[in-house]
Amino acid sequence: VNEIRIIPIEGVPEVGTGDDLGKLLFAALPEPLQDKDVLVVTQKVVSKAEGRVVPDRDRQRAAVEESTRVLRRFGDMIISETRHGFVCANSGVDASNVAEGTVALLPLDPDLSARRLRAQLRHHSGVEVAVIVSDTFGRAWRRGQTDVAIGVAGVESFLDYRGTSDVFGRELNATQIAVVDEIAGAAEMVMGKAESICAAIVRGARITFGTGSAAQLVRPHNEDLFR
Amino acid sequence: VNEIRIIPIEGVPEVGTGDDLGKLLFAALPEPLQDKDVLVVTQKVVSKAEGRVVPDRDRQRAAVEESTRVLRRFGDMIISETRHGFVCANSGVDASNVAEGTVALLPLDPDLSARRLRAQLRHHSGVEVAVIVSDTFGRAWRRGQTDVAIGVAGVESFLDYRGTSDVFGRELNATQIAVVDEIAGAAEMVMGKAESICAAIVRGARITFGTGSAAQLVRPHNEDLFR
Repeated sequence: VNEIRIIPIEGVPEVGTGDDLGKLLFAALPEPLQDKDVLVVTQKVVSKAEGRVVPDRDRQRAAVEESTRVLRRFGDMIISETRHGFVCANSGVDASNVAEGTVALLPLDPDLSARRLRAQLRHHSGVEVAVIVSDTFGRAWRRGQTDVAIGVAGVESFLDYRGTSDVFGRELNATQIAVVDEIAGAAEMVMGKAESICAAIVRGARITFGTGSAAQLVRPHNEDLFR
Repeated sequence: VNEIRIIPIEGVPEVGTGDDLGKLLFAALPEPLQDKDVLVVTQKVVSKAEGRVVPDRDRQRAAVEESTRVLRRFGDMIISETRHGFVCANSGVDASNVAEGTVALLPLDPDLSARRLRAQLRHHSGVEVAVIVSDTFGRAWRRGQTDVAIGVAGVESFLDYRGTSDVFGRELNATQIAVVDEIAGAAEMVMGKAESICAAIVRGARITFGTGSAAQLVRPHNEDLFR
């Protein structure tokens, strides 16, 4: 088993609507991309490149419009299900690290955003990398937030232990690790909120190249005991 | 911002009741511990060292006895709140990577387990490290499991951005990152379930040495919108 490195990508300039995010990230890479690297990029910078920004005065209306269902209200905040099926605060509408007077919405289709960025990075680098778009979500029963994957391209979302055996030869029948969420959380640790680091490379993770998506991470309503 | 390394600790022998876990882990270190390293160890191996193992036939009774409340039932499985306040499947009672015919329970006080292990590692290495005891939990609305911290010693549980500013100088008022959960999830990626790797070093994370605990991660009932 090899070690994993989490490498911040510093010096990406402020991103605006229509910017070629793949080109900007490629130009800022601290070292060449390698096969099986995962590039993690924050939702915020993807949303800015895609023009998913609205005036701050529309914030609360946008949070409701971006949701398909409001699960809970808590003061000004709603916990809602987004059009993508994610359950999060204010449908992911958020004012941090966007220009004064504006808020950013989640990308319309973050899996598509990830696939596009992956194609751009392949074009610039010639290397097959995976891409994860990350955002900071709260959890039902645990305090604090962690970053999770809201867009995925080029990698299986789960590391599936079902059908494999533990060290005692016993079948592991319930374990399906959401490895893309662990990668997103790991990358958050070098990105932070107060700096302008919007991307990181995760190198050495035991990923399987494939056609995973963040849509797969959404628990269907018929499996969901808590929605 | 520096990169983060996640280094697996391989070759720890099978652990039994009463074993000196700190000594076993210290002997297996692939390189010397450094200041501000976080040593992550799986709940399973801590439970084995502490004798928190019962016969498999007591599995379902144990899951109920270890819980203070059952939130949902789903076939043979319960989603319950443990004595520690964690919400997880079967109160954390689990058969993977324990001897045939047995199941492991969560440590009685995983924060205490972490503090003890931290003291042992300090004794052996002379270095002040943080310790996280990790376990694999499901999530309410997202498929798949990730590792989270169920025991913490020597590090603040949260990276608190409240009161700091984003790159636009705007106050970040809602963000409190559960960094110990992100560290536990990152470490899972080198530990896996099918191998016998029960510990990892996370080096370079922006942690704050302090008196954090996993108990702090439990959302109190009066803040909890989903329990």
